[in-house]
Amino acid sequence: MEPYMKVANIKSHPEGNAYGRPTQTYDSELVFVGPGTPGGEYLRRYWHPVAVSKNVTTRPQEVRILGEDLILFRDGRGRPGLLLPRCAHRGTSLFYGKVDDEGIRCCYHGWQFDVQGRCIDQPCEPERGLHRDKVRQPWYPVEERYGLVFAYMGPPDKTPDLPRWDIFEDLPAEVKLFATDSSFSVGGDDSVKILPWNWLQDWENTLDPFHVQVLHSTFTATQFAKEMAVMPKVSYEMTEHGIRYTAYRQLPDGRELDRRSPAIFPNIISTPDVHLQAGLSTTMGWVVPVDDTHHRRFHVMRVPADSDPSVTRPRQMYTEQNRPKRWIDMTEEERQQWPSDWEAQCGQGPITLHSEEHLGTTDQGIAMLRRLMRKQIRLVQEGKDPIGVSFGDESPRVVGSGNFFRAAESEVEK
Amino acid sequence: MEPYMKVANIKSHPEGNAYGRPTQTYDSELVFVGPGTPGGEYLRRYWHPVAVSKNVTTRPQEVRILGEDLILFRDGRGRPGLLLPRCAHRGTSLFYGKVDDEGIRCCYHGWQFDVQGRCIDQPCEPERGLHRDKVRQPWYPVEERYGLVFAYMGPPDKTPDLPRWDIFEDLPAEVKLFATDSSFSVGGDDSVKILPWNWLQDWENTLDPFHVQVLHSTFTATQFAKEMAVMPKVSYEMTEHGIRYTAYRQLPDGRELDRRSPAIFPNIISTPDVHLQAGLSTTMGWVVPVDDTHHRRFHVMRVPADSDPSVTRPRQMYTEQNRPKRWIDMTEEERQQWPSDWEAQCGQGPITLHSEEHLGTTDQGIAMLRRLMRKQIRLVQEGKDPIGVSFGDESPRVVGSGNFFRAAESEVEK
Amino acid sequence: MEPYMKVANIKSHPEGNAYGRPTQTYDSELVFVGPGTPGGEYLRRYWHPVAVSKNVTTRPQEVRILGEDLILFRDGRGRPGLLLPRCAHRGTSLFYGKVDDEGIRCCYHGWQFDVQGRCIDQPCEPERGLHRDKVRQPWYPVEERYGLVFAYMGPPDKTPDLPRWDIFEDLPAEVKLFATDSSFSVGGDDSVKILPWNWLQDWENTLDPFHVQVLHSTFTATQFAKEMAVMPKVSYEMTEHGIRYTAYRQLPDGRELDRRSPAIFPNIISTPDVHLQAGLSTTMGWVVPVDDTHHRRFHVMRVPADSDPSVTRPRQMYTEQNRPKRWIDMTEEERQQWPSDWEAQCGQGPITLHSEEHLGTTDQGIAMLRRLMRKQIRLVQEGKDPIGVSFGDESPRVVGSGNFFRAAESEVEK
Repeated sequence: MEPYMKVANIKSHPEGNAYGRPTQTYDSELVFVGPGTPGGEYLRRYWHPVAVSKNVTTRPQEVRILGEDLILFRDGRGRPGLLLPRCAHRGTSLFYGKVDDEGIRCCYHGWQFDVQGRCIDQPCEPERGLHRDKVRQPWYPVEERYGLVFAYMGPPDKTPDLPRWDIFEDLPAEVKLFATDSSFSVGGDDSVKILPWNWLQDWENTLDPFHVQVLHSTFTATQFAKEMAVMPKVSYEMTEHGIRYTAYRQLPDGRELDRRSPAIFPNIISTPDVHLQAGLSTTMGWVVPVDDTHHRRFHVMRVPADSDPSVTRPRQMYTEQNRPKRWIDMTEEERQQWPSDWEAQCGQGPITLHSEEHLGTTDQGIAMLRRLMRKQIRLVQEGKDPIGVSFGDESPRVVGSGNFFRAAESEVEK
Repeated sequence: MEPYMKVANIKSHPEGNAYGRPTQTYDSELVFVGPGTPGGEYLRRYWHPVAVSKNVTTRPQEVRILGEDLILFRDGRGRPGLLLPRCAHRGTSLFYGKVDDEGIRCCYHGWQFDVQGRCIDQPCEPERGLHRDKVRQPWYPVEERYGLVFAYMGPPDKTPDLPRWDIFEDLPAEVKLFATDSSFSVGGDDSVKILPWNWLQDWENTLDPFHVQVLHSTFTATQFAKEMAVMPKVSYEMTEHGIRYTAYRQLPDGRELDRRSPAIFPNIISTPDVHLQAGLSTTMGWVVPVDDTHHRRFHVMRVPADSDPSVTRPRQMYTEQNRPKRWIDMTEEERQQWPSDWEAQCGQGPITLHSEEHLGTTDQGIAMLRRLMRKQIRLVQEGKDPIGVSFGDESPRVVGSGNFFRAAESEVEK
Repeated sequence: MEPYMKVANIKSHPEGNAYGRPTQTYDSELVFVGPGTPGGEYLRRYWHPVAVSKNVTTRPQEVRILGEDLILFRDGRGRPGLLLPRCAHRGTSLFYGKVDDEGIRCCYHGWQFDVQGRCIDQPCEPERGLHRDKVRQPWYPVEERYGLVFAYMGPPDKTPDLPRWDIFEDLPAEVKLFATDSSFSVGGDDSVKILPWNWLQDWENTLDPFHVQVLHSTFTATQFAKEMAVMPKVSYEMTEHGIRYTAYRQLPDGRELDRRSPAIFPNIISTPDVHLQAGLSTTMGWVVPVDDTHHRRFHVMRVPADSDPSVTRPRQMYTEQNRPKRWIDMTEEERQQWPSDWEAQCGQGPITLHSEEHLGTTDQGIAMLRRLMRKQIRLVQEGKDPIGVSFGDESPRVVGSGNFFRAAESEVEK
């Protein structure tokens, strides 16, 4: 016995056949991040995290951000520096440089630069460099906040404020901040830092409250609170800094829940607690482009002052994702069995092909996000400032993310 | 003492020097297989095997055929399906999908498609998809025969018959068919499925009866019957489905042998038994392009009904090739010592450079095959049907391959 | 307590910012080596070493030189041959060929070629090839000298003399020559032969006497004689075959040293002993382009006739570089800690970006070398012969490299 069944003949069912389909394309205006690209210039108008502060030491490290290769280090006086790798002299990478109190020194002929690229020594030149102040190692400004090192890679005369956020300011004594660059929140783990697909696929997921009911509930396992499997009613609204959705659910126990989650431009997320703890979210994440086909995640979260999340968080994240192993330890077959955000987003390819999509009514957030992003790109091209950029306003901004329970008798939104 | 000898001076022997040679090229009309290429459109007018049936299960698998990436699976009711990988919704690969009786469901938002790409569920959309019948996942038709899954990737209105072959029909009770996708017959082994060179280099070898006397006889070792080392007289003829050669040999024991072997268009081989068992060949092979620089082999063979060739064949193939190890286990130095078809064909590079060849009188089969193939490509371009394509004729076709011994007094062909 | 310091605001320090910098480029005229490129045609007017003689056997080996893939072997009579890999018949690589007294035989159909590409057998063709003398496997002339196999890959009618060098001629009985293709002298080791960066970065280093005071003295460790840390006065002069620098040092012990080191065109170095042994250098090196982004080093040195440098030299080289391990065994972090020539030159990238350099007064040698090289490239383009090319003059050339100590009262050069 052959276990086969014959498929109905193609001649009587030609519809949808894959033959002869037109060229598939992506929307390069939205996805390219390099210097001079529309999306890249727009993203360069904001500060972006490039490293966790505690990982930045006198040992130079290579970072790649927005398609640019850079060297990050901290000088002996504690100042972080972000320089182009190629020494201004003969091009040797400063990755092999040595750092002291004053700056970084190239291994080849010893030229030394401070954290702002000033050349402060040329040991083989007459009088250690009569003209050394004419040389400047290209550099980007960095600032540290909330345990992260932020860089601004845009035009100097457009340098905006590095924003403060309400949930991370005026912390009570029993709370501290924890910063991480692990990829847990995208279904990865603490050993994987660089995610091999375009950043926008990851960030768009922020305004997609519906995949939770499938990917994180019924498909692999109950990865979040079991109440998340209830199909919500979702509304979207513009905010000062982007877009926010509210997902309303009538829970089996009679409670009613408004779950509010924002996409803060250009690339910030703040997911409400996935176990439905009531109140404001205590975490923010940045989706940072490495280049057109890679990105990374940085997260800051409020944690108990006496905790050590670098130890406890890995275990917690496995439990949350309800998978038996770390991502890095799973076979391809096991990833097929227990897919999570990694598979759903990386599975769209290095850059998704927008021409092939069919957005439904549940993709309203995705469509709004792209429209608003395209508008910002055009604003930058016209010489204007995009959303969320401020100059001289250091007051903390409202994140506005959280799980808000209503009284049972309240009016439900339509 | 220096063991060197001085080579005669170049100035007095400039002929053939490699300096300044013109650009080397391949014949792209013959070797390219992608959509829209001359060769690719011609190949798309035939059914091609894409997998061994028993390997097609509810676990989705990635296959790449004719330069196209596809997902192959078998639904819970036994029907094979071949779909484009990117979910029509948001582009996540169906490789991470789950299969049930009705079809395959994407992990991201749960859209489900049947084996012909119909969207049969959109769980997050109102009423599970009011407009879901407007969406179709691009698909290709598949049929199963002789233990293989065949796909047709050409224009639907040109769908030809999936041919039947005489040697595989009306099997007696003591015989069964065995299908395999191992690379044994190209000098590989059962662990290697994808061969990293253009398919035509492999298929052309089918009409090259002379390499047997060198590669398989005197060079490495006696890989086939020792009588194969006798230099044959070879004639070529056109057949209904391609080209066939007859290699006539007077054997040392006085017998006379006509060895007939066809190249059946577009990519089928049927090698007569290499140990010179008399009679019709009991095997056919398909040389299937993966893309321009990779291909794979599928074989079907008649075997005893009570045998298990998946166990016995590997050992048999090592013996046949007279090499001490599997291909995968040999070092590069060992492959130099015992080359076989893999080295002879892969050694031509990912795509051979036709501009550099010097065909001899013994390459008549190669030249005929290319001429006939080019003619078919032109026929397809003119809107006509290439050789071997039929519509509505399911009668078995004659393979016509085998070792035929003559009586000693017979007339020899010239 | 946060250990951070705020960097001065970018708005008040915009100078040298990395934003908006123009496209970075390299000087392709100098760095490209392929056929038909300006630099490649210039380099093709000289003989280049392609292998150490003792490594060239009847086992065919693949070599890549000046962007061309070639097969090198020695026939059974001891003659080295350098042929294009693709058999002139059907294109199978001669890497899988077998070598006998007469030449190399292709594995596929057995065509055989001698070391100058003549086709001397076509076993399957009538009468073993009635027209085989019309076929020639493209070949390059080779000659052996000083333990190396040299090839000439330029126009046959411009074939120059293969130079002899004074330090390797008329050896006394207690001295022999030792040839090696290890990468010790570039900071590599005996396990690494192919260096992954453009050859010119390596060769330029020859006229850079100043990096010694940093890279090899104060930065990693005292890799050479400790007196090398003394900053020299350096002068440069044109020679018959290129450029030579003289580095004058007053040593702490009162002696005065002239260290003379030439760059012999097109790609030869001869470093004076780095432990300051007095007298002529006893070694020469060739910096041979593999392709635009790879090169290799060949060295010949005078050694005691009863020594075996293949055993003793590895240990000696570690000691010289004052690093605890072989290059191949170091982690990236250890290479940061103990950088040597490898890191300084490979750290410039696969091809350095000349547009980004800032040459100082100590880079005079680099500038002279590039000017003289560009002049040779132009000469070749005008149909003239570049520097150092001779025809019919086999007399040994003067290398002129060494450490020369002066009497204390001598006049110092300015």
